[in-house]
Amino acid sequence: MKFAEMTCARFLEALASPDPTPGGGTAAAMAGAMGTGLLVMVTGLAKSKTSSDAEKAALAAARQALQPLIPALTELADADAAAFDQVMSAYRLPKATDNDKAARSAAIQAALQGATTVPLQTLRACAAAMAHAETVAGDGNRSAVSDVGVAIGLLEAAAAGAEANVRINLASVRDLKFTSAASDETGRLISAVNRQAAAARSQLA
Amino acid sequence: MKFAEMTCARFLEALASPDPTPGGGTAAAMAGAMGTGLLVMVTGLAKSKTSSDAEKAALAAARQALQPLIPALTELADADAAAFDQVMSAYRLPKATDNDKAARSAAIQAALQGATTVPLQTLRACAAAMAHAETVAGDGNRSAVSDVGVAIGLLEAAAAGAEANVRINLASVRDLKFTSAASDETGRLISAVNRQAAAARSQLA
Repeated sequence: MKFAEMTCARFLEALASPDPTPGGGTAAAMAGAMGTGLLVMVTGLAKSKTSSDAEKAALAAARQALQPLIPALTELADADAAAFDQVMSAYRLPKATDNDKAARSAAIQAALQGATTVPLQTLRACAAAMAHAETVAGDGNRSAVSDVGVAIGLLEAAAAGAEANVRINLASVRDLKFTSAASDETGRLISAVNRQAAAARSQLA
Repeated sequence: MKFAEMTCARFLEALASPDPTPGGGTAAAMAGAMGTGLLVMVTGLAKSKTSSDAEKAALAAARQALQPLIPALTELADADAAAFDQVMSAYRLPKATDNDKAARSAAIQAALQGATTVPLQTLRACAAAMAHAETVAGDGNRSAVSDVGVAIGLLEAAAAGAEANVRINLASVRDLKFTSAASDETGRLISAVNRQAAAARSQLA
């Protein structure tokens, strides 16, 4: 069953169970979806009756960009759990013969790359959402200022959580071209998230 | 319908809708429940086969304290939306006569105190969960280090979101004894949350 189809209570129970999945990567993606949802809410509230056409158009464009990120992030919540399950399955493969060992090692490496790629996609989605936070903060209704603040905080926590999951899996990946590209992109995305969060917060003050 | 009984997809839809509730206060409480859930998960994973009895007992005590905070936080997610709806209803009361005006003003003040108390309770619950993060980080299984990191980030974001909701409502409350007590407690709780988050993170390094 997909996490989006579970009740919130059931999802929280699954998080709290000692099974390794769903874990932090899934929770990060769901927190990103919540933060994005709050931003979408505020795009639905015009600043005032006197909002300029440019302000209205900017909010509408942000809304259109943000909306598809919510289902994308809930899919990534599922993908994160699946990717981690793959890693564990790979570690459980037989290692009796040299052939076994080589096959197991290849499976582990492939699974670890998958378990890196998924949180990297979560990080990309959080960065894509945060890219609109300043517009939403500046052109959205002032009565929603605390909603935007919570959205920014959740997206930051989600992005940092996704980054932690990228880096912990990346540490065991042996393909240096892959690790270097993933590490560089992760660093760039986190910088952008932090910069955009600060710019958005300055609109709320 | 309670948020805990909604599917995650339906809850996210409700957050994203332009209706003012559920908003940031509800999202903060749910993020706190997710962070707490991840900590509970890690209390279910002993550090190693050689964990000392003291480590096992500390994890078990943390688990017992953390578990009830999950349903408490989902209840607060509902209570936050209800409290905000009360504020909006109070503002909609008639103000034709002086009697109307006095009754409306009293209703607004009562509702604003409610809308301050609920996120303050959310903040207390997040602080209560964060109080165990250092133990979970130190005595939990090392393989869950990124899960604990995500939990800390979500609880920080939830606590900051709850604080923002306390302060924005408190700004319109006129009872100075109430505002001063709530403001003092909020400051103390946020300091404790930040201190405990730093202590827990130092165990993860």
